Amino acid sequence: MPSRKELANAIRVLSMDAVQQANSGHPGAPMGMADIAEVLWRDYLKHNPTNPEWADRDRFILSNGHGSMLIYSLLHLSGYDLPLEEIKNFRQMHSKTPGHPEYGYAPGIETTTGPLGQGITNAVGMAIAEKALAAQFNREGHDIVDHFTYAFMGDGCLMEGISHEACSLAGTLGLGKLVAFWDDNGISIDGEVEGWFSDDTPARFKAYGWHVVSDVDGHNPEAIRAAIEEARSITDKPSLICCKTVIGYGSPNKSGSHDCHGAPLGHDEIKAAREFLGWTGEAFEIPADIYSEWDAKEKGQQLESNWDEKFAAYANAHPELAAEFKRRTNGELPADWAEKSQAYIEELQANPANPATRKASQNALNAFGPLLPEFMGGSADLAGSNLTIWDGSKGVTADDASGNYIYYGVREFGMSAIMNGIALHKGFIPYGATFLMFMEYARNAVRMAALMKAQSIFVYTHDSIGQGEDGPTHQPIEQIANLRMTPNMTAWRPCDETETAVAWRQALLKETGPSSLIFSRQGTKAMARDEQQVADIAKGGYVLVDSEQTAELILIATGSEVELAVNAAAELTAQGKQVRVVSMPSTNQFDSQDKAYRQSVLPAGTPKIAVEAAHRDFWFKYVGQDGDVLGMDTFGESAPGAVLLEHFGFTVANLVAKANALLAE
Amino acid sequence: MPSRKELANAIRVLSMDAVQQANSGHPGAPMGMADIAEVLWRDYLKHNPTNPEWADRDRFILSNGHGSMLIYSLLHLSGYDLPLEEIKNFRQMHSKTPGHPEYGYAPGIETTTGPLGQGITNAVGMAIAEKALAAQFNREGHDIVDHFTYAFMGDGCLMEGISHEACSLAGTLGLGKLVAFWDDNGISIDGEVEGWFSDDTPARFKAYGWHVVSDVDGHNPEAIRAAIEEARSITDKPSLICCKTVIGYGSPNKSGSHDCHGAPLGHDEIKAAREFLGWTGEAFEIPADIYSEWDAKEKGQQLESNWDEKFAAYANAHPELAAEFKRRTNGELPADWAEKSQAYIEELQANPANPATRKASQNALNAFGPLLPEFMGGSADLAGSNLTIWDGSKGVTADDASGNYIYYGVREFGMSAIMNGIALHKGFIPYGATFLMFMEYARNAVRMAALMKAQSIFVYTHDSIGQGEDGPTHQPIEQIANLRMTPNMTAWRPCDETETAVAWRQALLKETGPSSLIFSRQGTKAMARDEQQVADIAKGGYVLVDSEQTAELILIATGSEVELAVNAAAELTAQGKQVRVVSMPSTNQFDSQDKAYRQSVLPAGTPKIAVEAAHRDFWFKYVGQDGDVLGMDTFGESAPGAVLLEHFGFTVANLVAKANALLAE
Repeated sequence: MPSRKELANAIRVLSMDAVQQANSGHPGAPMGMADIAEVLWRDYLKHNPTNPEWADRDRFILSNGHGSMLIYSLLHLSGYDLPLEEIKNFRQMHSKTPGHPEYGYAPGIETTTGPLGQGITNAVGMAIAEKALAAQFNREGHDIVDHFTYAFMGDGCLMEGISHEACSLAGTLGLGKLVAFWDDNGISIDGEVEGWFSDDTPARFKAYGWHVVSDVDGHNPEAIRAAIEEARSITDKPSLICCKTVIGYGSPNKSGSHDCHGAPLGHDEIKAAREFLGWTGEAFEIPADIYSEWDAKEKGQQLESNWDEKFAAYANAHPELAAEFKRRTNGELPADWAEKSQAYIEELQANPANPATRKASQNALNAFGPLLPEFMGGSADLAGSNLTIWDGSKGVTADDASGNYIYYGVREFGMSAIMNGIALHKGFIPYGATFLMFMEYARNAVRMAALMKAQSIFVYTHDSIGQGEDGPTHQPIEQIANLRMTPNMTAWRPCDETETAVAWRQALLKETGPSSLIFSRQGTKAMARDEQQVADIAKGGYVLVDSEQTAELILIATGSEVELAVNAAAELTAQGKQVRVVSMPSTNQFDSQDKAYRQSVLPAGTPKIAVEAAHRDFWFKYVGQDGDVLGMDTFGESAPGAVLLEHFGFTVANLVAKANALLAE
Repeated sequence: MPSRKELANAIRVLSMDAVQQANSGHPGAPMGMADIAEVLWRDYLKHNPTNPEWADRDRFILSNGHGSMLIYSLLHLSGYDLPLEEIKNFRQMHSKTPGHPEYGYAPGIETTTGPLGQGITNAVGMAIAEKALAAQFNREGHDIVDHFTYAFMGDGCLMEGISHEACSLAGTLGLGKLVAFWDDNGISIDGEVEGWFSDDTPARFKAYGWHVVSDVDGHNPEAIRAAIEEARSITDKPSLICCKTVIGYGSPNKSGSHDCHGAPLGHDEIKAAREFLGWTGEAFEIPADIYSEWDAKEKGQQLESNWDEKFAAYANAHPELAAEFKRRTNGELPADWAEKSQAYIEELQANPANPATRKASQNALNAFGPLLPEFMGGSADLAGSNLTIWDGSKGVTADDASGNYIYYGVREFGMSAIMNGIALHKGFIPYGATFLMFMEYARNAVRMAALMKAQSIFVYTHDSIGQGEDGPTHQPIEQIANLRMTPNMTAWRPCDETETAVAWRQALLKETGPSSLIFSRQGTKAMARDEQQVADIAKGGYVLVDSEQTAELILIATGSEVELAVNAAAELTAQGKQVRVVSMPSTNQFDSQDKAYRQSVLPAGTPKIAVEAAHRDFWFKYVGQDGDVLGMDTFGESAPGAVLLEHFGFTVANLVAKANALLAE
């Protein structure tokens, strides 16, 4: 039988061979962490290679995602559907083995990692999801939700600020089934980390309320086993296992140095490493006995079968809960959702009110929340401003995780990446809020949601200079354009309560990616619509007010500026002009409509003016160079919102003047 | 003589009165921290209200910037040019007292704060600048650089991830003259922080290598004095003073609760607070003896005079150093800069080479670095990829801070906000680098540089899918548009070595704000230019290749796609078409040219195609709806860069086909 070291060496040789073949990649981390991975995956990880979607599997996150060959090796060796051909095609077009682990490419990849610190934060989200789902569904004698979340991370993850946000909150929430491994190899890309990273990391994590297992020899399987046993025995705190390792272990001349971090070892050094490791096989050649010892398919099937039996007993005792568990983990909305959400929207249209859209959003939460126990809400310490708490909100705490609301604290980036982890775990639809400006603190997690097609719903209030006195630090200008240009993101900026409810509904219906719901601080005016117009809101852009004859001018507006456009159109109409107003709550959604529809709303050739209290450059896509934009191209100022809107030209008089100037051209 | 408590109460009443008058703002923090501020400002802070620009003043940063009335009160009471009228106009249009302290509005505001965690990070940057400037300029017996940096921060700053990045690095660099005060009031916007923030903060900061003064009564002036004395006595570590305070101290019914955090107290409660504090004056009325006791003008003048004498002695002993110190702290480039930089640019144009622009950037650093001792470079652990180290680079360390390069570690946000602090301190021009994608981790600090008009030079390499195998997590799509749409930002994406050198020169010449220098990983081809074209690079866009007769088509390209456009134009020309190629390294710079120039480069009516391996939506501003864009609107993939560029259509054949399709319309 192969020794543990030989089993770990299989990871090492696959990693160095694949990186060499690609002539690109990071052999250091996989070779350094191979021994830890071997112990964790073979002795502890509860998973089924044949069904990577098993709901109660342990989650494994490689937060140091540049070490992707580690997880590809593990998946391949364990028996996932990742054949050797894919390992040989590492980092090539159309392979399942891209440079960083990408969610949706290879089976068993739980989240996309590479942008440092976000993997551990996704893991915190998954551990929260596990704890909350267990609290909501488990019953006496029926622990159907009971799995660990394991994360590997390097020095880079620990230097990133997001690791502070996530690990601090993980401590507060007492995530006892989260076990993180620190690859303490003393090396980052620039060299030995002591010149830029001298934290006492164990003390830091103790300060967060973690259990810390210090000074573990990351190349000694027995020490690793003991550390994992200790970590798993602590059920009220997350655990950090600090593993001393040698980066690139096995490479006789490059291990322990940043030379093996992010570049192929080279053929000569690979040969020397094979000798050092006592590995006789050719490139990509794994002996049958090693494959056999790694193969986790049979054990995995058995584990899942055991769980199936548990679940059957649970379903017997609690049939409704079991059905609900299936529904939620399958990501299906409730059966009455379509009907009830539509009724709510129609009710709003029939009973006009003029709230700020942030308030309309809270109203929507109160309408939809009772239908959606899968909601997991939250705000980065702005609940009273973002209006994210609805009547059924209950906080998730260390002692009682059965709630549906997370008090994230002032941690926008952490919140957003935690939301992604919750969404990927399944069982919840997370929404989380901050001021639109502070989307920027979380920006790359928002993008990662889009890249992974995770259903995170980002709620952003205080969406323009209209927010007023807080001034330019808090007034978005270029942020909306940034969200709209993010592939797979659907950004919504509704103009009134009805559009707000539709935006929420569409975000909930969009299972294949994130939405950004952008809301005003200030009041908005309810717009009149017929039935077709109400239906067309979901198309992202539609004719809100049309001219009697063929329009000679089209005003396109979003959010709080729609009322301005409607008022300007009324004045222009009184002047004898034929003016159409298009409400465009979601350019992304509008762009996805067929050309005929888009042309019917915005016919080519008709002069157009876009009106939005945000960066004007975005709108030339819709108005062209012959049109005009009433927008912003400077920062805002501090003053009451109404004063600012006037100061920056968002007045009927100014828009009418622009319209007449354009028509006179 | 007024008591310390009465002096502190002057801050409290001004703060609650101003917030009430504005009907907007945050009284809690100023009222809670008034006692700490009184001791620090009156007993320790070295400043001269009459000259807020004095080079050797202590820096004071209110990192919890929402408590802006604290610093406005301090500036007003101390005798800065901030009359009572401005206090009364708090948060109003055209006042010097916007909702958050804005750099450049009121004298004595060292940096704009409000976005949490960035103030303390700016402070770390200022303390690094002080330490480095002292190491470079002080001589035996001549400590001309010798000042403290003090920062106030609340729980919010400490929850933000950036506080981890900045404070960890501050510990590693041993910033002994940085003293931070934690306003430990147990309250954030959502309520009592224990539900979402349970860190042992003193232990956390000890883990960073800070000196921590724990459990200080923030309402006891003697305890505060003792803590400051202790902190100042520790010269090899930054100090954290943990002050237990009551938020909104003085408000009998709202203190200690989040009710006083971010809303006016109300007239009744203000009346009750006046009684509680024993304050008899009307709103905004400060007794003369309190003004007199606060007035720091005379003392400040004396302090600066003392320093002037020291500086005169220094100038006597070290005249060249003294002149250089003046030059650098005044932000003047060296006398020979214009000539030598121009000579370098001409030399490059005359000697074509084809490096990646990241390599061209390193070459520019090697050319300009010896001329510019004010350079303070760095990278977020990607020196070998960003190519930010030049021959004269020397690391800044705890023991020897005389260097010109900071190993920032994997801390993009921290790096960027530290750069802003260094730039605002004066004496250095900071540049710092990461991959363009990870600009997003630092995004709001980049925006803050633009808002503050700070001369931070952000270097971003690996600028497109052309970077290749790292895959979509590392491939920018929407990021360049985001930088271009940031007001006051000048983004450059040069196409070859000459344009790269010009971009660097323009960034160095732009004293009034940040620049982003966006560089390729892959090689670029040197373009032929005449003298006028070389000069026109600085205009941001210019005709690189013109048609013989009037152009019937214009190709606009940037960066690595310029070569593609030139090759496509050659083929189209061979087909008998009249095609112009415009190189557009900086749309921001181009937009700032007069209309005649812009029209001469991009005449209206001529069909245009923009070519850039970045989000296509940005370019409609220049090509209109009748033009076309060869760009991206999806995420990238993992594969060699050349494979990806072909896969996504960045080929001569595809561009020629697009051109012919457009011409046929």
